[in-house]
Amino acid sequence: MTEHESGEQHKIEDVRITPVAFHDPPLLNTVGVHEPFAVRSIIEIVTDSGISGLGESYGDAAHLARLRGAATQLTGLDVWNTNELERRVGRSLSGENTTGGHGMSGMVTGSDTRYRVASPFEVACLDIQGKVLGRPVSDLLGGAVRDRVDYSAYLFYKWQGHPGAEPDGWGPALDPEQLVRQATTMIGEYGFSAIKLKGGVFPPEEEIDAVLALRQAFPGLPLRIDPNGAWSVPASIEVGRRLEGVLEYLEDPTPGIEGMAEVAREVPMPLATNMCVVAFDHLPPPPPPPPAVASDAVRIVLSDHHFWGGLGRSRLLAGLCDTFGLGLSMHSNSHLGISLAAMTHLAAATPSLGYACDTHWPWKDPDEDVIAAGALSFSGGAVAVPTAPGLGVELDTDALARLHEQYLGCGITERDDTAYLRRFQPAFDPTPPRW
Amino acid sequence: MTEHESGEQHKIEDVRITPVAFHDPPLLNTVGVHEPFAVRSIIEIVTDSGISGLGESYGDAAHLARLRGAATQLTGLDVWNTNELERRVGRSLSGENTTGGHGMSGMVTGSDTRYRVASPFEVACLDIQGKVLGRPVSDLLGGAVRDRVDYSAYLFYKWQGHPGAEPDGWGPALDPEQLVRQATTMIGEYGFSAIKLKGGVFPPEEEIDAVLALRQAFPGLPLRIDPNGAWSVPASIEVGRRLEGVLEYLEDPTPGIEGMAEVAREVPMPLATNMCVVAFDHLPPPPPPPPAVASDAVRIVLSDHHFWGGLGRSRLLAGLCDTFGLGLSMHSNSHLGISLAAMTHLAAATPSLGYACDTHWPWKDPDEDVIAAGALSFSGGAVAVPTAPGLGVELDTDALARLHEQYLGCGITERDDTAYLRRFQPAFDPTPPRW
Repeated sequence: MTEHESGEQHKIEDVRITPVAFHDPPLLNTVGVHEPFAVRSIIEIVTDSGISGLGESYGDAAHLARLRGAATQLTGLDVWNTNELERRVGRSLSGENTTGGHGMSGMVTGSDTRYRVASPFEVACLDIQGKVLGRPVSDLLGGAVRDRVDYSAYLFYKWQGHPGAEPDGWGPALDPEQLVRQATTMIGEYGFSAIKLKGGVFPPEEEIDAVLALRQAFPGLPLRIDPNGAWSVPASIEVGRRLEGVLEYLEDPTPGIEGMAEVAREVPMPLATNMCVVAFDHLPPPPPPPPAVASDAVRIVLSDHHFWGGLGRSRLLAGLCDTFGLGLSMHSNSHLGISLAAMTHLAAATPSLGYACDTHWPWKDPDEDVIAAGALSFSGGAVAVPTAPGLGVELDTDALARLHEQYLGCGITERDDTAYLRRFQPAFDPTPPRW
Repeated sequence: MTEHESGEQHKIEDVRITPVAFHDPPLLNTVGVHEPFAVRSIIEIVTDSGISGLGESYGDAAHLARLRGAATQLTGLDVWNTNELERRVGRSLSGENTTGGHGMSGMVTGSDTRYRVASPFEVACLDIQGKVLGRPVSDLLGGAVRDRVDYSAYLFYKWQGHPGAEPDGWGPALDPEQLVRQATTMIGEYGFSAIKLKGGVFPPEEEIDAVLALRQAFPGLPLRIDPNGAWSVPASIEVGRRLEGVLEYLEDPTPGIEGMAEVAREVPMPLATNMCVVAFDHLPPPPPPPPAVASDAVRIVLSDHHFWGGLGRSRLLAGLCDTFGLGLSMHSNSHLGISLAAMTHLAAATPSLGYACDTHWPWKDPDEDVIAAGALSFSGGAVAVPTAPGLGVELDTDALARLHEQYLGCGITERDDTAYLRRFQPAFDPTPPRW
């Protein structure tokens, strides 16, 4: 394959959602015990080009209903257009006010319904993108920076089996000794290099003993405990102090940001969470303490891919601004057509861009550029988003050579507006504030 | 095209960097006046598969030297691996301590050197990706949400021509009347729907008059003024109050976050910036006011693509955490192989992931899954990142049918660990804190 003449469309033709159940041991947690089956939903998306992609999510009934409602909106969607996917899922949920379906038995309920529903469809679209391209999904996310991913040994207190059923292969784990045995079995089989204990099942002092027993049995392995918010602030502080130097991190000891903040001030290890920060709008600081990002000095950031690190990082900036309620516009300085193409693609794909972008384009001699004419044009103050492959502009090598000659001849190797003005106004002083 | 058997490699074979100069009119700003030429760098990347991509950046000598140093490190890089691109650019700059090369004549100097240097290479890589795929770059950024991008009419005070040269076609713009004429010409030609005036050139009262003249001439168009930090705090407040109801936003009236914050409290319109927030580390709040993100309660966020909105949004979360100095780990609940594949690709491509990820994998019966066996396996507690196209897992339709039958038969449609435990311990109360 070299270059494609035009991009084939890969539009969603069919979405299949299949709830499945698989056996689950009687794992204990602070809200109860795992039922004999765990339920999940399996999502298959098939394109009109015959390529299928997979996604997986929770299987709770309310979530399944939302997935099915969203799926009806996805026919015809280009699998590259994840922005539009999020929009359509959001639309399918408007007016939807059922509760439940968070998939985690009441332990994590604050996640954003729209993103929870969109997720498996997005994953399936990425699966299809990768298949079209012949590349793993990690390549679509910026490229793998590691070729193996470490997981932790996830220990649970558990019964020896579901009531009324045979004991399962793992046996019971109701005290430190049995937990160490469970860890030994699991690490023997999987080779895990870190250990997490699901806590909040027995009184904290018993769970401290369990962690200390694990430390003794596995001296080199990082340890974590996660009671899912089962402890009061004082109990959390007591545990944190007792386990100083033992835990890699302490996960969700107590519910809510305020309680977590109190605990964080008093314990030596960092606190981790998947309960009190589970949606983008949980990240900005609450209003009462003075707003944080830049002291509320700025309400609009003018992005510029030239110094924010390219288009990918400029999308990250857009997401940051969106998360923190900042507006987004776009900066420019003197530029040629390659930059205008890049700016236009970025702006086209940034939903939260709320202002007309800056450009120095009109100040450039129309006959001077390095790209072949015709790819970019203004009408009504706007540039049509190129639809040709890539940036959609081509280098004019003769024009490049001419402007390079001009560079060699012009004597400017460092932009210096001040020195240039001083040649005509020697007393000019740009030191701010000038007024 | 349907599915590719394997992903072709597109590795960087050659990087060409050509400085160019193009004519620039004598545009005035607060640090001086544009020189007769603007200088830019044109980046061409050519892959071993013969595909070329384009990037464009500043042309200042110090920046060119850094670009050239970085370019020597890029040979052999897969154009999809933008994570590795950033790493190599960073490595090429280690120990580099020259100054300058910010490309904006001293007006924006705080941008991050690594990201400024990486940017044009990343854009060129995206250009190549798009060509390989036969799709516009906007598709690689999540898909265009608009098919036209609005730019603003960028007005400048200017001389009639460079000293000693013929007047240029634009004529002088040194007072409100001439600026309105410039705007009329520019909008006539381009159709712009918003207007920006580069200010900081004349005393504020003159520039207020110019903005008011533009408002009168173009009553329907949003207006902005950008003095590039030329004004004191009191002068900025005076301008802001005088232009109440006239400006869409006020851009960088005064230098620095503190001054901007003072102004923001006293003026009616939002402040915008491309000067005091130009790098990711400018976004987190300064240490003296209490740390903002979640009151410093949490130092590690456990991401979970199932509720954060998929892999793309989980990458946004990773970038947010990285920006705010938060650690990143990964949450799990009971899941099958499709989720494990997605989690593994995400973790593989997330540089800032600092902990072994959670997984419930060992608690699942090895014989129960919906994917064909063999794609994912643990060794040393880690899963090798799949390198096959897409997620790298295939649906086993017989297994899917079996687990769906199991779903229909098991009677669980809503996970409820608490009700299940109460069947055996009727007094169980999960209300936190339990201890």
